[in-house]
Amino acid sequence: MMQEFERIERLRKRVEGTVNKHVKVAIGDDAAVVGTEPDEDHVVTTDTMVEGVHFLPTTMSWYDIGYKCMAASVSDVAAMGGRPIAAVLALAVPEELDFEHLEMVYDGVAGLCKEFSCSLAGGDLTRTSGPLVLTSTVLGAVPKDRALLRSGAQPGDVVFVTGQVGTSAAGLELLVGTAVVPVDSQLELRQAHQRPLPQVTAGQILLDAGASACNDISDGLASEANEIAAMSGVRLRIDSARIPISPAVRDFSRAVRKNPLDYAWYGGEDYQLIGTASSRSFAVALARCESVGVKLTAIGRVEAGDGVVAEDENGTLNVIEAKGFNHFSK
Amino acid sequence: MMQEFERIERLRKRVEGTVNKHVKVAIGDDAAVVGTEPDEDHVVTTDTMVEGVHFLPTTMSWYDIGYKCMAASVSDVAAMGGRPIAAVLALAVPEELDFEHLEMVYDGVAGLCKEFSCSLAGGDLTRTSGPLVLTSTVLGAVPKDRALLRSGAQPGDVVFVTGQVGTSAAGLELLVGTAVVPVDSQLELRQAHQRPLPQVTAGQILLDAGASACNDISDGLASEANEIAAMSGVRLRIDSARIPISPAVRDFSRAVRKNPLDYAWYGGEDYQLIGTASSRSFAVALARCESVGVKLTAIGRVEAGDGVVAEDENGTLNVIEAKGFNHFSK
Repeated sequence: MMQEFERIERLRKRVEGTVNKHVKVAIGDDAAVVGTEPDEDHVVTTDTMVEGVHFLPTTMSWYDIGYKCMAASVSDVAAMGGRPIAAVLALAVPEELDFEHLEMVYDGVAGLCKEFSCSLAGGDLTRTSGPLVLTSTVLGAVPKDRALLRSGAQPGDVVFVTGQVGTSAAGLELLVGTAVVPVDSQLELRQAHQRPLPQVTAGQILLDAGASACNDISDGLASEANEIAAMSGVRLRIDSARIPISPAVRDFSRAVRKNPLDYAWYGGEDYQLIGTASSRSFAVALARCESVGVKLTAIGRVEAGDGVVAEDENGTLNVIEAKGFNHFSK
Repeated sequence: MMQEFERIERLRKRVEGTVNKHVKVAIGDDAAVVGTEPDEDHVVTTDTMVEGVHFLPTTMSWYDIGYKCMAASVSDVAAMGGRPIAAVLALAVPEELDFEHLEMVYDGVAGLCKEFSCSLAGGDLTRTSGPLVLTSTVLGAVPKDRALLRSGAQPGDVVFVTGQVGTSAAGLELLVGTAVVPVDSQLELRQAHQRPLPQVTAGQILLDAGASACNDISDGLASEANEIAAMSGVRLRIDSARIPISPAVRDFSRAVRKNPLDYAWYGGEDYQLIGTASSRSFAVALARCESVGVKLTAIGRVEAGDGVVAEDENGTLNVIEAKGFNHFSK
């Protein structure tokens, strides 16, 4: 039986490559010490992932589980226009879980952290009689008093999203189902579900360009768009035809006879960003995003009013409710 | 069935009194925004509590559960010499848990946070098929480059502890057992287990006074003293007779025919501080602690060497192993 000390030491080794100059003391003391910069605020956010609720052994590898739990929190930092600095990870581990699998979880955590120069600076490890529970908390930095909030959308602003939406939800259905789709599309769908890439670069560009509001898409476009509408006291009017949906999601939707827009609106965990900006700011952001290979798409306008409405190809307006993403139940 | 939004809103109300001027954006956006001060570093720490591992319905009220999960992280901030600023709380909640009980958990969180002017600034709420899992993460502030670490103990330093130790562990045994002890002692023991008070004031005094090392006592004096010895590359020599043990623990020990020192060494969750300081710094800290009603006791000396040794009344030296606290099982 391994001693607690040896277990911690072996897990620490898995993440020791995740360092940056802002973290002065990492794993090994009561708390991590993170330096501050005079022109920056810190942002902090936490996310929990539970086996059987957010993932199954059939939908995610051990590596994916660690990667994605961190990605969820880093995505929140991205939505504020920030860059991640330090992360802590708390795990409640079933006794029957092999230690080697736990090491793979940490490899995934390290993989995501290295991608964004974020230091895994601490954590807690405990056991549980229930399913595996992971909680990531990420500390990020944003320019002082300039964090991108959900509350700044103004009538007349452009509504935009980064990347493509609905891909993760289609990926999850592919993983638990029996749909037949081309191999390339399968790969893209699975990747979107298992290893979503938080939009840190896009968030920083959007903040620099003066975007007025931003939200990350963890619970689906419908839910996140409604949050911006509610917090800003405006209506978001979306042109459904402009919502960027991957050909892989269209392939999958055909195979399961569903409307691809349903994945886009109600699928979650894409970790793309939805936001608003004046036409001028949007143009600046679009040019910068294009120059670094980030897809940014205008999908609608902000109006006076409330809620979210979608205009379809026939000009019909539909109210989009804030329905969320329900993982494996209901 | 309550909507997710309404649940979050009702829980938010429970903690809305936990505010401070450092938190610019609290619950309600992708992340909380926390201001920084040019002369401070931030510290960050996380703790997980699992039903059946760290508590049982018979040992803790719902309020206590919320209070104590936060206390665990605030205690780590105290051990760095810091003050807590912002906290986030992630919960994995069994479906059968009454919402009213969840509200009481948040009341306990709010109770602890208000005690230390810490803002509950965010969180995550998810369900689980297993036991209740709580993860608190606390962000604190310390004077720049002066965080109290475990690694600074020097031969010749005084070893000290705050308060009294072993009380929480005796309290837990009282709660799950059948020992007969006086009512006043019962009250003190239970209180120590259910509502331990993190030593934030003591930590700040110790930092100001120039203490050389510090660690909070979450896993028992033996374990924490060994951590300081290992991280500092020194030996801690403790005079067993000087370890501050409450009369209530002595009452309880008599009732269960155990050595009170066993609770002191190996009992956990006291959330007191153990540390080291030069004689001069210790004298300064002692005077300041006395002036604010904080008990500080010299219990030994730092020597060249390694590990922890305890000298008993007969002058016999015993090596104290880094055994931890085992909650309800191994």
